[in-house]
Amino acid sequence: MKQITLTLDEAYDLAYRVLRHSGFSELHAAAVARNTVNGERDGCASHGLYRIPGCVRTLRAGKVSPDALPTLQDSAPAVVKVDAAGAFSLLAWEKALPLLVEKTQQGGIAALAINRCVHFSALWADIEPLTEQGLVALACTPSHAWVAPAGGTTPLFGTNPLAFGWPRPGKAPFIFDMATSAAARGEIDLHRRAGKSVPPGWGLDSEGRETTDPARILEGAMLPFGGHKGSALAAMVELIAGPLIGDMTSQESLDFDAGAGGLPYGGELIIAMDPRRFLGDEADTHLARSETLFSAMTAQGARIPGERRHRERARSEVEGVTIPAALYQEIVALG
Amino acid sequence: MKQITLTLDEAYDLAYRVLRHSGFSELHAAAVARNTVNGERDGCASHGLYRIPGCVRTLRAGKVSPDALPTLQDSAPAVVKVDAAGAFSLLAWEKALPLLVEKTQQGGIAALAINRCVHFSALWADIEPLTEQGLVALACTPSHAWVAPAGGTTPLFGTNPLAFGWPRPGKAPFIFDMATSAAARGEIDLHRRAGKSVPPGWGLDSEGRETTDPARILEGAMLPFGGHKGSALAAMVELIAGPLIGDMTSQESLDFDAGAGGLPYGGELIIAMDPRRFLGDEADTHLARSETLFSAMTAQGARIPGERRHRERARSEVEGVTIPAALYQEIVALG
Repeated sequence: MKQITLTLDEAYDLAYRVLRHSGFSELHAAAVARNTVNGERDGCASHGLYRIPGCVRTLRAGKVSPDALPTLQDSAPAVVKVDAAGAFSLLAWEKALPLLVEKTQQGGIAALAINRCVHFSALWADIEPLTEQGLVALACTPSHAWVAPAGGTTPLFGTNPLAFGWPRPGKAPFIFDMATSAAARGEIDLHRRAGKSVPPGWGLDSEGRETTDPARILEGAMLPFGGHKGSALAAMVELIAGPLIGDMTSQESLDFDAGAGGLPYGGELIIAMDPRRFLGDEADTHLARSETLFSAMTAQGARIPGERRHRERARSEVEGVTIPAALYQEIVALG
Repeated sequence: MKQITLTLDEAYDLAYRVLRHSGFSELHAAAVARNTVNGERDGCASHGLYRIPGCVRTLRAGKVSPDALPTLQDSAPAVVKVDAAGAFSLLAWEKALPLLVEKTQQGGIAALAINRCVHFSALWADIEPLTEQGLVALACTPSHAWVAPAGGTTPLFGTNPLAFGWPRPGKAPFIFDMATSAAARGEIDLHRRAGKSVPPGWGLDSEGRETTDPARILEGAMLPFGGHKGSALAAMVELIAGPLIGDMTSQESLDFDAGAGGLPYGGELIIAMDPRRFLGDEADTHLARSETLFSAMTAQGARIPGERRHRERARSEVEGVTIPAALYQEIVALG
């Protein structure tokens, strides 16, 4: 497979140009370009430049606002809401971040609901700024109904990612960001594009039979990771980032899309906690104890979630990012 | 295997008598008897009467207080702490519940840290009273270092259960309570007692090799469920119910036990959210949408977590509970 290498600036300029040409406002084009280049930079191809065509397709289908500005609502002492008004989640998140941090520092724990947003971005990018302020954070969002519950055969849940971050002063934060499906939908689609089969356990065909053919899974049903436990977590994400925040379930999002092939539309829930409000002056002592846990993981060969991302980041800043030539041409053709 | 059937009152009286005889105060004996009989009643043998000998063993080893009373601390606008002072978690939880509910209703979200508690009980029992008040809740706790992280071979994490509850007015709440290990340690021990091997993927022997022999796993390392994703969740539980609340990791708990064979000692974190503070007058409308999700699960044969427990509860209230005769004799011999 032919590949193209771009510097981070070149990648950003390409993404920004294509998004602007497609009709996104300066603010939204910049936010999406930054987010997708950051994904590519951090070695996360399924949330990298690969997302640009989907963003453009969603706009052309009339399923995302190109220019809506978010509205902030201080809805309870420990709850912030931000209405993305049908645009991507990124500007809404930026707008709400300072108030979420303030409420977390005041109360010890606080929640942010991002509502009416179109969602394509990786959750670790929403978690990272919270860990940089010394906060612990959780985030989740439904998607489209693509995943069958354990014991079922028909799509109902989204890939419903769940992300968690823990601050590590002076070090890259501990951050995991995982689909509650066995694989991310982007991963399955990347296999299809590459003409590869997927590992067993990733999904079912439209008759509800297990298959390793990515195209059949995309038409059938994905499976949750870890059997009924992953399925339970996927249901939790549906509930707390759907009805709890007055927003859509994955099924409702897919119904709203009505076959347009647009990105998921709905809400995202972020919960932040301030170790200083839990621990007072002892916060540093206890955060240091978490480093003992991380050292013990590393010592036996287990990975610290997020470390690979930061290694890739350092490398990309020097060497740029390398993407398939076909993807590059697809993006260029949009601009 | 011979079995004994007891009414719920008989089971309670037996547990209470044995616990009192062993030295627990009236309040603690009643709380433990109630909790374990409730577990047995709800069809959860691994958190049922099977726990009584472990509670007594922990007391004999000097690893749990028989009579300490909990102390409540209102530590931040959205954070409650309760110090169990080395006793079981149950009385501390009862004491803290009203203030946690009040803070959740005021702020929209609040957290409770139960500190310095010995923990043996199922988390769903802590979640249920919150859902009964119309709240959404999450709970987790480390245990002893029994589980190897994904990619490792040596015990480091606890079985680290994670529980979640969602209120369903007029119905049994949606509650899952799952070990982030492939199986609960009690499950593995019940297999050992029954002379059965366990399914593949539950654990490693002390050389780090996969095995299905429960005794070898108990001496070696259990495995997380769902590979690196379950492992990441286990690490999250270590962090947020350990250092974040100023309490022990599973490794520290095991070190503190120093081979006495006592129950895990440390903290539990509970997070509660009030749909009414997120949604205002629209709360009922949105909670009704969650029922659409549950109906769609049931329609395709997927289970609603917690439903089985409530079916078993209804049955046990009529028919009593049936336990192995060997366990019955073991408990009777303690009293």
